Amino acid sequence: MSNDPLVIFMPSGKRGRFPVGTPVLTAARQLGVDLDSVCGGRGICSKCQVEPSFGEFPKHGVTVSPDALSPRNEVEDRYDRIRGLKQGRRLGCQARIQGDIVIDVPPESQVHRQVIRKAADSRTIVMDPATRPYYVEVAQPDMHEPSGDFQRLAAALKEQWDISGVTADTALLHRLQPALRKGEWKATVILHRDHHGTPRILDIHPGFWEGRLYGLAIDLGSTTIAAHLCDLRNGKVLASSGLMNPQIRFGEDLMSRVSYAMMNPGGDAEMTRAVRTAINGLAESIATEAGVDPRNIVETVFVCNPVMHHLLLGIDPVELGQAPFALATSESLTIPARDLDLHAVHPQAQVYILPCIAGHVGADCAAVALAEEPYKSDDIVLIVDVGTNAEILLGNRERVLACSSPTGPAFEGAQISSGQRAAPGAIERVEIDPVTKEPRFKVIGCDLWSDDPGFAAATAQTGITGICGSGIIEVVAEMRMAGIVDAGGLIGSAEQTGTARCIPQGRTHAYVLHDATAEGGPLIMVTQGDIRAIQLAKSALYAGARLLMDELGIDRVDRIVLAGAFGAHISPKHAMVLGMIPDCPLDRVSSAGNAAGTGARIALCDISARARIEEEVRRILKVETAIEPRFQEHFVAANAIPHATDPFPELTKVVTLPRVSFNTGGAGEGGRRRRRG
Amino acid sequence: MSNDPLVIFMPSGKRGRFPVGTPVLTAARQLGVDLDSVCGGRGICSKCQVEPSFGEFPKHGVTVSPDALSPRNEVEDRYDRIRGLKQGRRLGCQARIQGDIVIDVPPESQVHRQVIRKAADSRTIVMDPATRPYYVEVAQPDMHEPSGDFQRLAAALKEQWDISGVTADTALLHRLQPALRKGEWKATVILHRDHHGTPRILDIHPGFWEGRLYGLAIDLGSTTIAAHLCDLRNGKVLASSGLMNPQIRFGEDLMSRVSYAMMNPGGDAEMTRAVRTAINGLAESIATEAGVDPRNIVETVFVCNPVMHHLLLGIDPVELGQAPFALATSESLTIPARDLDLHAVHPQAQVYILPCIAGHVGADCAAVALAEEPYKSDDIVLIVDVGTNAEILLGNRERVLACSSPTGPAFEGAQISSGQRAAPGAIERVEIDPVTKEPRFKVIGCDLWSDDPGFAAATAQTGITGICGSGIIEVVAEMRMAGIVDAGGLIGSAEQTGTARCIPQGRTHAYVLHDATAEGGPLIMVTQGDIRAIQLAKSALYAGARLLMDELGIDRVDRIVLAGAFGAHISPKHAMVLGMIPDCPLDRVSSAGNAAGTGARIALCDISARARIEEEVRRILKVETAIEPRFQEHFVAANAIPHATDPFPELTKVVTLPRVSFNTGGAGEGGRRRRRG
Repeated sequence: MSNDPLVIFMPSGKRGRFPVGTPVLTAARQLGVDLDSVCGGRGICSKCQVEPSFGEFPKHGVTVSPDALSPRNEVEDRYDRIRGLKQGRRLGCQARIQGDIVIDVPPESQVHRQVIRKAADSRTIVMDPATRPYYVEVAQPDMHEPSGDFQRLAAALKEQWDISGVTADTALLHRLQPALRKGEWKATVILHRDHHGTPRILDIHPGFWEGRLYGLAIDLGSTTIAAHLCDLRNGKVLASSGLMNPQIRFGEDLMSRVSYAMMNPGGDAEMTRAVRTAINGLAESIATEAGVDPRNIVETVFVCNPVMHHLLLGIDPVELGQAPFALATSESLTIPARDLDLHAVHPQAQVYILPCIAGHVGADCAAVALAEEPYKSDDIVLIVDVGTNAEILLGNRERVLACSSPTGPAFEGAQISSGQRAAPGAIERVEIDPVTKEPRFKVIGCDLWSDDPGFAAATAQTGITGICGSGIIEVVAEMRMAGIVDAGGLIGSAEQTGTARCIPQGRTHAYVLHDATAEGGPLIMVTQGDIRAIQLAKSALYAGARLLMDELGIDRVDRIVLAGAFGAHISPKHAMVLGMIPDCPLDRVSSAGNAAGTGARIALCDISARARIEEEVRRILKVETAIEPRFQEHFVAANAIPHATDPFPELTKVVTLPRVSFNTGGAGEGGRRRRRG
Repeated sequence: MSNDPLVIFMPSGKRGRFPVGTPVLTAARQLGVDLDSVCGGRGICSKCQVEPSFGEFPKHGVTVSPDALSPRNEVEDRYDRIRGLKQGRRLGCQARIQGDIVIDVPPESQVHRQVIRKAADSRTIVMDPATRPYYVEVAQPDMHEPSGDFQRLAAALKEQWDISGVTADTALLHRLQPALRKGEWKATVILHRDHHGTPRILDIHPGFWEGRLYGLAIDLGSTTIAAHLCDLRNGKVLASSGLMNPQIRFGEDLMSRVSYAMMNPGGDAEMTRAVRTAINGLAESIATEAGVDPRNIVETVFVCNPVMHHLLLGIDPVELGQAPFALATSESLTIPARDLDLHAVHPQAQVYILPCIAGHVGADCAAVALAEEPYKSDDIVLIVDVGTNAEILLGNRERVLACSSPTGPAFEGAQISSGQRAAPGAIERVEIDPVTKEPRFKVIGCDLWSDDPGFAAATAQTGITGICGSGIIEVVAEMRMAGIVDAGGLIGSAEQTGTARCIPQGRTHAYVLHDATAEGGPLIMVTQGDIRAIQLAKSALYAGARLLMDELGIDRVDRIVLAGAFGAHISPKHAMVLGMIPDCPLDRVSSAGNAAGTGARIALCDISARARIEEEVRRILKVETAIEPRFQEHFVAANAIPHATDPFPELTKVVTLPRVSFNTGGAGEGGRRRRRG
């Protein structure tokens, strides 16, 4: 056994013997310990800080003497003077091994440090961004051994960072020579690896560059575009921002946009321009909000449904509007941001777009899968991402299935008589007293219930303007629980229900939730048409989930995850009363918030996550709802509230639904067939 | 031994046994026989035509019976009806092997067919262009196995052509879906391989595409831009065209353009725009001339000196104007044409730029090396590419050296009092009677000598306007041979030379070549200043060659190749009398014409030539003339005509130079030092 000192790195526990005088950074690299360095061990970047421990370590079987590391040198002294070095910290590239030593690598010195995704979730994002700065010292030109500056830069990256085969755009060549000379042959290159690992230099800065690199994770939805600006060093979200998708003016839902492209020559290009312009504006505003130079945004990750995907890429989505719903391209893409006219970011910024799963199941669904990892689940999980289209994933580590279902925009408050988008003044929570049938509610922007003292004053500013998506689900479910709506979805008359809030409307009835007409305000009610719209939407969602359950040969799921920005606000109980989701213990229904956005952030922060989801997407079994006869059967059966035939034993444990029926044999109240689009 | 029929392909002689029923094309592929096919064996493209031979073949030890191939089938009959199949020809994909057979592959059916480069030269260009059409049949989309159209296209290329890992721009994705549907899932893709072999789809056409692909080989010189439009199937030059480099308005020679960039902020961008605009115009006009759709120009190869190289790429050439003359990038480049704003060609066209050898020795010199292959020469060859800068290569298969030398524009007729560019009316050949000292000459555009009857009438149209580059070399050499100029370069007086054509000009003399002043025409003469300009130019050229000979440790070269558009017109004897080139048997001095342009064409037609020259350029030893003290020594010694000290034994065998001296100790006639620039 060698007499060289033993070096033990914590928390990894990696250990090895190294000759006296070996720098700690060198030892870490040779052992594969995750210790960061941007300057390559030249005492410039200070990223390789470590904490040596001294004394007895019976667990490791070593005793660390006070002189186990070389004394602090002038480089460390200077750094401490200028920037301050924390008590007990050393620079790993300067401190040399002199005896057995235990060295702690603090989290901020780890390249692949883990970032807690959110407080409520123990899952973490591993930091391994595709774009990183590398400091290099480049050989000066020699007339007698002529070679290009780029070739000597490439040689330096190979020698100092073991990165071979770098490429660059001609734009980099324009900046290369002045940068190298200004930095006196020292430079920091911004290097991007695509998901095949091919390295490309995006930019070069003279000398050691102190700047930060940022990335945008963009969830490009049919209705809204949401962006997170992340620090690519630590994954921190510096700002989040969103705006309405301007394509809405061409059509509310996806199929009407496809129709717009089919009916109007150049319509697809018009929609492409609109969305690209909006994304540029969003990038600019989010950078301003975070106080970040948009030129340091070097990466953008997109998740979106297939129609948005094609329109973003400038591909006519016409094929997605008709069977067999063929995608132009299904695999992930790494392309220059300028190919998408994204000029608000770094001119060499790269875009990564997650793979699409099928013609109706997009990169957004892939992102949900990446965030929720059904393919790692022991129990069978149903994940529904509720939006204008619902993306549905079902399965466990053995097998994962996916489909999408055309729920339409009812869940988002559209196509509802008093519906509105989630904004201050919108009713978002509702309770109806089963005896008095009197409602109380909460509006966005106020924590009080409508029957609390002070509610009127508190909402005087915003008013009470309408019902948002989660409000409409709650009110319809509450109406069902209070016996105002029967299992078939019919609203009873005042006589049948015993409340004057049920008022006639033609041959049907409506339930008055809030009447402010006396004060010149709105009359907010739930009409029979609203109930029908919600029934259509929830039937589509349920039918999609059931179809996947059939494919998997199961009758019940172990747990349910509600995803989507809207999913976070849905009450599981109300969703189940409506029959939006299959029966399941209520405590096994959770919300994942904007899982697609989270998936985009993961892909932004961790290049290996890209390879992982590409692999998983290939394994996911795609189920096409549009052509599956059983989908129609499930859809019709799911029209009832909660369901015509499926028992809901778990729901029954917590809720007893009144056995009422208001069907008097009137016309037009059978299960209508919903057409896609 | 197998009883399967024996198949022998000629002219390769490749042979193998194949089961009865094997198509000839399949057998050829398995044996690696060079038999073309664009449609992949579907009887569409007719590229795989073969000629079976029947009867006794004692040399091969086989007897071929008349039924050794399957009878002509309906596909061949139809082809013959519509297009005509030559007597004895079969389609290789239709004809099946039934017995021992000898099959001849005619040259036009070979992919890598060889093309004779020019009549006078036995060397050939092997056709293996980087961009080729491939016909594929693509699987239709299947809702139950969803995948993108691009992924199914990639799978078809893999399965039908064994081409893996194809990539494409988003622009291709825009066109993909309509093309596949229009062609009913049959398509012809235009596929480019870069010099690492990475395949990229540039375009897609519905069905079997009958079109042709073209390439441009462009020699981008300081003074002129010359382009050849080539058919990428057979290498044929369909049109050649040239124009003046519009950068001339920023400076005649390279260093004055570098100065322009240094003195004028944005000056480099201005020159970049000028040259790119000119190249677009040239591409358009040459396509029009050849009657070719410029959208089918899918490749462009550039050769140019380092300053032109950087200005073409949009790189500020300032570093090339000062030691150590560092190139921004020295290796070859494959980049999209649109990165160079070349919009006149196919929007996805690719550009290949040959590698630069050193800061003063460019891709043009690499192209000369590719055309002349000094690295394959058994004897030691000196190659000089004469232009505003001279590129010089010296060596043999063991070792090749390169340098450039700043000859200035005198050899092109600039800086000469009566000098002009080569155009009708310019004196291009001169003879001076050694006894009478009377000249006779020829002008461009007329085959008669000036003392032939009818000369005046024949040149009435163009007039006699000046002296072009080859004319100035001849007249100075003739003046030296006739004793009008002495070894020091001094023109004698009328008294000293015995001819009234020597007239005084200040303190020096001039020789009157043609006096048309009586008719209101020009007075064309050679002044002392002209002689000095030629001496400076030829000394630089000779000094560069000598420097390389020193490096190689030799005193004489075995043969000399004069390259450059102008090199083709230089008389070897006159060049040697002047001392432009070292002594060498006159019959070992040859002209290679525009070798740089030929090198560009070779790289355009043959992708393997790109790898070859990249490899050779790495081996070439670069010699920097600008900082080599011996260059100055050689330069001064080379000032004399032909040389102050070097003997010219081979020249002496054919020419006796009069021992005259007109130096009367006058001022200002010492060897002036030439400054670069």
